[in-house]
Amino acid sequence: MNPIIILVHPQLVENIGMTARAMANCALPELRIVSPRDPWPLGDIHRQRMMAASSGADDILENAKHYDTVKDAIADLNYVYATTARGNDMVNRIMTPRAAVPDMIERTSDGQKVGVLFGPERMGLINDYVALANAKITIPLNPDFMSLNLAQTVLLIGYEWYQANDATPENRIRIGKSRPALREEYQKFFDRFEDELDKAGFFVADDMRPTITRNLQSTLGRAEMTEQEIRSWHGVLSALVDGPKRKKKS
Amino acid sequence: MNPIIILVHPQLVENIGMTARAMANCALPELRIVSPRDPWPLGDIHRQRMMAASSGADDILENAKHYDTVKDAIADLNYVYATTARGNDMVNRIMTPRAAVPDMIERTSDGQKVGVLFGPERMGLINDYVALANAKITIPLNPDFMSLNLAQTVLLIGYEWYQANDATPENRIRIGKSRPALREEYQKFFDRFEDELDKAGFFVADDMRPTITRNLQSTLGRAEMTEQEIRSWHGVLSALVDGPKRKKKS
Repeated sequence: MNPIIILVHPQLVENIGMTARAMANCALPELRIVSPRDPWPLGDIHRQRMMAASSGADDILENAKHYDTVKDAIADLNYVYATTARGNDMVNRIMTPRAAVPDMIERTSDGQKVGVLFGPERMGLINDYVALANAKITIPLNPDFMSLNLAQTVLLIGYEWYQANDATPENRIRIGKSRPALREEYQKFFDRFEDELDKAGFFVADDMRPTITRNLQSTLGRAEMTEQEIRSWHGVLSALVDGPKRKKKS
Repeated sequence: MNPIIILVHPQLVENIGMTARAMANCALPELRIVSPRDPWPLGDIHRQRMMAASSGADDILENAKHYDTVKDAIADLNYVYATTARGNDMVNRIMTPRAAVPDMIERTSDGQKVGVLFGPERMGLINDYVALANAKITIPLNPDFMSLNLAQTVLLIGYEWYQANDATPENRIRIGKSRPALREEYQKFFDRFEDELDKAGFFVADDMRPTITRNLQSTLGRAEMTEQEIRSWHGVLSALVDGPKRKKKS
């Protein structure tokens, strides 16, 4: 069960479309709209402008539900978060998006229906609506320049939701069609490398050999090469050693 | 030291402006631009369109540096990340934004200059440019609907950067001008509450009293009230107990 995105009095149909686009990026399917400026259902022209702004997130918009009041839009929910940038004097539980998401996950896995309220462009949510929610979500960003548009705010909440539910490895080497080289393949290449350097008279001072060897080996090790790349480097070594001679042979 | 945002061949001046706006939200000051479609420095009309789209992030745009090639734009950097959504067959270190940011922090605290490459709208970075970077950043989002615009991609990286450097408490009760109530204030209110319920004949079965009392106490405790709120609830209790009688007095 995903959190439900609830737009309160959105002013521009383009922003409803862009919100749907942001939601689709984050695999959030359910949108509710409370009394937008342009009466719902939209006329053809407004509808077209909304659809164009959604870049193909049509399903979300087709299935969006309209409500007359915030109270109606949240009536069947167990827990409601209100997004807001502004400080006010109300006593509130305030969470960052990063803390709100585990809270959402815990509730939804428990069978609860949760929703997130987003206020109109520029204005944000009025206090009366914030008071209807259980908690507030405030995105920590540069206090000297807070200028997120509606769809960006939805995107950041949706992004956090998606990350928490996603298992993409955080840091990995992508190896394409090859496979990570075996230590044996590294070692064979390196033995040959060292041998050729020896023949070429690279090791002028014998006492430096262990250090230099270790450093060269370490460079290649850090690169985490694939089997394919080891073969390429064998070719590189052959070319450098044989030089133009090799070309003449062919 | 902040990571430097590098836009490679951006197509629309509006997107340069919106990128600056996203950067300002995340307190990222340094922008580099590699051969945009419209020749740099921009003519008056293009410049105005860019500035309008930046919603006031003028400083970033005034200070943006222009380069002819990606190689020139990254020459003075120690480590470069390439953002890309597409898979390819290149062997790459791939990080999520969440993993890339601690990596950036470690490098920048170490005095390294780091930059993040963003490709042109729609196209993304070509492999030749990805190969110039040390690592790739790919944002895990809905694989069935990947449609982030340039400024949104910059926003998500910048958002992660800002979060990692921000100390906002993740989950707290904001108390406005009051202060969290003391246990003594809770207890005094609750004793009075229980007393009034008693007088009103609320506790019909004496053996249920401990459970009911505990539950009522727990409800109020979970609300984490302020001193001000405790006083309001004293007023609520008085009004309910005295009823219309009280009004008549005044």
